[in-house]
Amino acid sequence: MLAKYVPILNWGRRYSRDKFGRDFLAAVIVTIMLIPQSLAYALLAGLPPEVGLYASILPLVAYAIFGSSTSLAVGPVAVVSLMTAAAIGRIAQEGSADYASGAIVLALLSGGILALMGLFRLGFIANFLSHPVISGFITASGLIIATSQVGGLLGISSTGHAMPELVGSLTENLGQFNPYTFVVGAASLAALIWVRLGMKRALAALGLSPVAATFAVRSAPVIVVLLAIAASAVFDLGAKGVALVGNVPQGIPVLSMPTLELDVIGALIVPALIISIVGFVESISVAQTLAAKKRERIDPDQELLGLGAANIASAIGSGFPVTGGFARSVVNHDAGAATPAAGMFTAVGIAIATLLLTPFLALLPKATLAATIVVAVLALVDFSILARAWAYSRADFLAVATTLAGTLVIGVEAGISLGVVASLVVFFYRSSRPHMAIVGRVPGTEHFRNIDRHDVRTDPHILALRVDESLYFANARYLEERIAGEISARPEITEVILMCPAINAIDMSALESLEAINIRLTEQGIGLNLSEVKGPVMDRLKRTDFLNHLNGKVFLSHHDAVAALSANRGP
Amino acid sequence: MLAKYVPILNWGRRYSRDKFGRDFLAAVIVTIMLIPQSLAYALLAGLPPEVGLYASILPLVAYAIFGSSTSLAVGPVAVVSLMTAAAIGRIAQEGSADYASGAIVLALLSGGILALMGLFRLGFIANFLSHPVISGFITASGLIIATSQVGGLLGISSTGHAMPELVGSLTENLGQFNPYTFVVGAASLAALIWVRLGMKRALAALGLSPVAATFAVRSAPVIVVLLAIAASAVFDLGAKGVALVGNVPQGIPVLSMPTLELDVIGALIVPALIISIVGFVESISVAQTLAAKKRERIDPDQELLGLGAANIASAIGSGFPVTGGFARSVVNHDAGAATPAAGMFTAVGIAIATLLLTPFLALLPKATLAATIVVAVLALVDFSILARAWAYSRADFLAVATTLAGTLVIGVEAGISLGVVASLVVFFYRSSRPHMAIVGRVPGTEHFRNIDRHDVRTDPHILALRVDESLYFANARYLEERIAGEISARPEITEVILMCPAINAIDMSALESLEAINIRLTEQGIGLNLSEVKGPVMDRLKRTDFLNHLNGKVFLSHHDAVAALSANRGP
Repeated sequence: MLAKYVPILNWGRRYSRDKFGRDFLAAVIVTIMLIPQSLAYALLAGLPPEVGLYASILPLVAYAIFGSSTSLAVGPVAVVSLMTAAAIGRIAQEGSADYASGAIVLALLSGGILALMGLFRLGFIANFLSHPVISGFITASGLIIATSQVGGLLGISSTGHAMPELVGSLTENLGQFNPYTFVVGAASLAALIWVRLGMKRALAALGLSPVAATFAVRSAPVIVVLLAIAASAVFDLGAKGVALVGNVPQGIPVLSMPTLELDVIGALIVPALIISIVGFVESISVAQTLAAKKRERIDPDQELLGLGAANIASAIGSGFPVTGGFARSVVNHDAGAATPAAGMFTAVGIAIATLLLTPFLALLPKATLAATIVVAVLALVDFSILARAWAYSRADFLAVATTLAGTLVIGVEAGISLGVVASLVVFFYRSSRPHMAIVGRVPGTEHFRNIDRHDVRTDPHILALRVDESLYFANARYLEERIAGEISARPEITEVILMCPAINAIDMSALESLEAINIRLTEQGIGLNLSEVKGPVMDRLKRTDFLNHLNGKVFLSHHDAVAALSANRGP
Repeated sequence: MLAKYVPILNWGRRYSRDKFGRDFLAAVIVTIMLIPQSLAYALLAGLPPEVGLYASILPLVAYAIFGSSTSLAVGPVAVVSLMTAAAIGRIAQEGSADYASGAIVLALLSGGILALMGLFRLGFIANFLSHPVISGFITASGLIIATSQVGGLLGISSTGHAMPELVGSLTENLGQFNPYTFVVGAASLAALIWVRLGMKRALAALGLSPVAATFAVRSAPVIVVLLAIAASAVFDLGAKGVALVGNVPQGIPVLSMPTLELDVIGALIVPALIISIVGFVESISVAQTLAAKKRERIDPDQELLGLGAANIASAIGSGFPVTGGFARSVVNHDAGAATPAAGMFTAVGIAIATLLLTPFLALLPKATLAATIVVAVLALVDFSILARAWAYSRADFLAVATTLAGTLVIGVEAGISLGVVASLVVFFYRSSRPHMAIVGRVPGTEHFRNIDRHDVRTDPHILALRVDESLYFANARYLEERIAGEISARPEITEVILMCPAINAIDMSALESLEAINIRLTEQGIGLNLSEVKGPVMDRLKRTDFLNHLNGKVFLSHHDAVAALSANRGP
């Protein structure tokens, strides 16, 4: 029973030396990759860099216990860090004690929400985020994040978490431009871009084995950080106005529980919900893609529990909201991670790094971390989604464009909320006018087809309408209107037959509409009949009075209905 | 072209003496019915009673020009008046000048929203209000309104627009109980209830013709008002502490345009939207029911224009939000109204009454108006919807119960919003797990049926999955999970066939899911095939790259698919 919610009890029992070897190797590689990223994303979230390290220790252990993916690497990620900054920025000044405790509360709320969603199997809520909305949101977030780091690369300060304020503050502060910072930033950026695009080929040309080359590429960002620290020390960059990380407390933070104040919770609960869902959606799609490669299955509800536990652990360890990262999960998988234990070993690696690395961090130029962020997030920006959505359907395009524009111009929470509203409105608009066809008999057969597409026979006294969708609140009223319209246009109609083979469900709104239609038709002396009603729909109708009031009949086949109702009137 | 948006240009041209006679008679009856109601509903909205008369003049003229129903009687109605009080109560003190101008702004905003919805054909937005939500909301509103009038019947004051505050303030002020007020209130209530339940039979027993009896019943509430005024004068009730309407300005108000302030608009725009939609939904369902009796058709978009014009006119005439009333529209229809001109004649009747009646209103006890409201709204309360929803489906019950409880406990706007959210969540919950069946061949045929229900043959290497719903963002991820689950459970699978005859549409989220499934299956060496894809769905898929990437084939019939894929593997 307990093992159902705690996967480690299953895989832990079958753990082997072979798996340990694979997990350990993967953990080494992920640790090296995670160090600069975690520092940078903490900075992006408006927090001191070491908080990024804190958020990469306990959350990984918690996910290893409760998570179901054998490949997912949890920790700080770019988009969630931006959302964290936007959320806490509204209640506290960056750098203040309230800001740091706000981050902890946000992680705790987010963890609580995720865990509750998992326990109550509410993962379907994530379905409200349609793919176009997520795509538009991620692209806009990438652009905002990249822009927010431009200041860091040039030595000028900027504020804001949406384009207008960001660009405005950058323009205003152009005078702060620092050539030394620019050199460090540009050099870091160039180095990291080369690492991404050219290094592997260059090493292969030098005769390095693919495995060694891959490992070298993955450790390169850490080397860039170390080189930047060295350059900072040698050239005394701090004295030349280059912003450095500065002194950070050494060691691992004492475990803590944040003090919860009602007004802080009130201000952060909605952002926490949005962060939870965005983080979950991002994480689950990576986890599912990687699980498929191993022919494994991801349980979304268990993933919610795993990510919930990770975020609660992040709060306890003085961190900030975390989720499964795309790039590092792929690296984890490619490096051969066999079980969630790889995450535990990564946590140990980061803990060791935290103990050893912090003394050197003081000299690290922030511009190098900004370069790390820019390189990571540019992979998120994908404008092709606009073109693809436009080509596929205007409705999906509207959802992408609304989300993209809303996020860029207003901000992350407003953008994604507008996107969700737009996709819901578009969905209801489309399904509020379901496809319906007036049908007639194909001569010489018992088949009935759309009169607009086929050469068929109809009886002028019978309105035979096939409804090609389930009936529910969004389209029930349209059915009323459609029937009223046909009846008022054709006074000769004496019988209506609704042909129902495509109706998978009828909700209560639709039932009330059918009852209203029945009453109105009765008053007009017109019969209402149903044909080819599916079994489950019929079962549900039988639980109501509707069939007793129905002024016509329910026919098994549409052919029977037409035959009976035509015959009724006589020759 | 113009006539399309201004129906009066159509029916006006065919107006006849016969129609005039019918419209005039209906107008007389509706006028008599509307006088006490309009006074009472203004009081319910927290406004001076004469404002109810103002809101029953210009709006009726505007609706007669732009509306499409020949039976609808527009004016103040109970639920919208309660919502008006709740909305304005948040920004101004009852009785203040800001309160009165708030009502005007609310009518203007509401009219603007309705007219825009009509012009841009956005009537489908009303579909978000499912029938269970409306039923729960109306019942809860009726209870709140009745409770809010208890104070008026007993002579004690009360505040609030939701149960906790209302009941609390009533209990607190019990000491204000006034026996004279109680006598007036109880007598009015008894008289009005007898009018509803017993008067017609009593008159028939006295030998009155049914037509005369009906007319008498409909004028009776005005008689009750006149008797109350007489009693008030004779017994000098005002001196005995009975609350009277008091002096009201005589005459019809000068036309005015409200001054629009941004913060007032900001505070009232969301309530105005909710009021617009609730008013529209209430109005359109009455209009449709009555139109069906005449075999006429209501154009919802034109109705939006008509109600929008009515509310803008209400603002210009110093009124408050109005909509089509249920009871008085039925009376209008039964009395034989033939065209919207009946509304114009009613407006003239109310204007005359406003000029003649106002001097007498000063003496009218408010308790009589409270009794009028109580009798009108108790017809709205219908708890049977809870039982019917429970019997029909738990999902619909959840929507009713959420709306009912939310409205009673928190208030009208929160209640209906919670109801909408609940019905959306329930809808997405249900459609996030669409019905899917693994199918096999019925022996000796080319038919494929659900393996759980029929004795069918399957090929262990083929996963044949029939999806019984359109694929879109709410269920796309579930399809991914379902296929991943089957694949991981049955390692012998080498081909997947999605049988698609019930899929009416595939949105972009679902397309991305299909692409993800295709990529994952390709990596596992498993083929992905489609069968029996509908024409329109196929057309849309052809506009994308998907079919080029698909690692399997699209088959016209499922039988062909199984035959080809079984044969492929050889014997």
